[in-house]
Amino acid sequence: MAGPTKDRNEAFLKRWHRIVAEQDMDGLGEVLSEDVSLGVPPYWQRIEGRDTAQHLLGLVIQNIEGFTYYREWSEGNEFALEFRGRVGGNELQGIDLITLDDDGQLCRLDVMIRPVNAVIELRERIAPRMTEFLAQRAEAAASA
Amino acid sequence: MAGPTKDRNEAFLKRWHRIVAEQDMDGLGEVLSEDVSLGVPPYWQRIEGRDTAQHLLGLVIQNIEGFTYYREWSEGNEFALEFRGRVGGNELQGIDLITLDDDGQLCRLDVMIRPVNAVIELRERIAPRMTEFLAQRAEAAASA
Repeated sequence: MAGPTKDRNEAFLKRWHRIVAEQDMDGLGEVLSEDVSLGVPPYWQRIEGRDTAQHLLGLVIQNIEGFTYYREWSEGNEFALEFRGRVGGNELQGIDLITLDDDGQLCRLDVMIRPVNAVIELRERIAPRMTEFLAQRAEAAASA
Repeated sequence: MAGPTKDRNEAFLKRWHRIVAEQDMDGLGEVLSEDVSLGVPPYWQRIEGRDTAQHLLGLVIQNIEGFTYYREWSEGNEFALEFRGRVGGNELQGIDLITLDDDGQLCRLDVMIRPVNAVIELRERIAPRMTEFLAQRAEAAASA
């Protein structure tokens, strides 16, 4: 891999780990590309666009207790980052598959989590707040 | 990474892809270490030991239609392999996190799959045959 790409990747990973550790939601918005595409554990349908992805990822990070990254793989502009944590007393293990675009912004993220009961518990905690967020967005769009 | 380790890893990956593509269950048994530990999508509890892991992985490979590997990451003796397929009309995306031991045998595999409905569908197809397998093993152990 070329030096500049390697440096850029390392800088991204450092920034990403800081954002997650500090639950820095503004910082999260800054690393997501405007047309980011997010594949989530509960549904096949993808979440598209920075605002919705930022809000959902923020809820995920806030609702997984003891969120900690473990193993890490890097290949070109793509990373696989293993994490572990707990939700409602259920232990969980997950992976973030991250793609960076040419500008070094996160343009694609696929998240997989095991086991199923942790995904369902997480969805139950997050769904009401996502519904609220989407309703507010729809209202704002209607009155704009 | 040292040359021999790199060669060993490449040989393992070539063998693994062939085993999965050909659904070669004997070949699968040969690459698993005797005390392999398997983390599966439906449960937190791990599957331990070659016989049970081999049987379960065989059922997974046989029950995911159009099983195809996509992105691949390698780091030391650990790999992350993305796959996609379908089960009962549900599309799915998954990841195999593989660890090789010093002998080049697969000693740890964590599998995560999204979305939840595909995991549940897969579990429903596989559970009766796993129950049957475990009952036969228990019976054989009792009469041995």
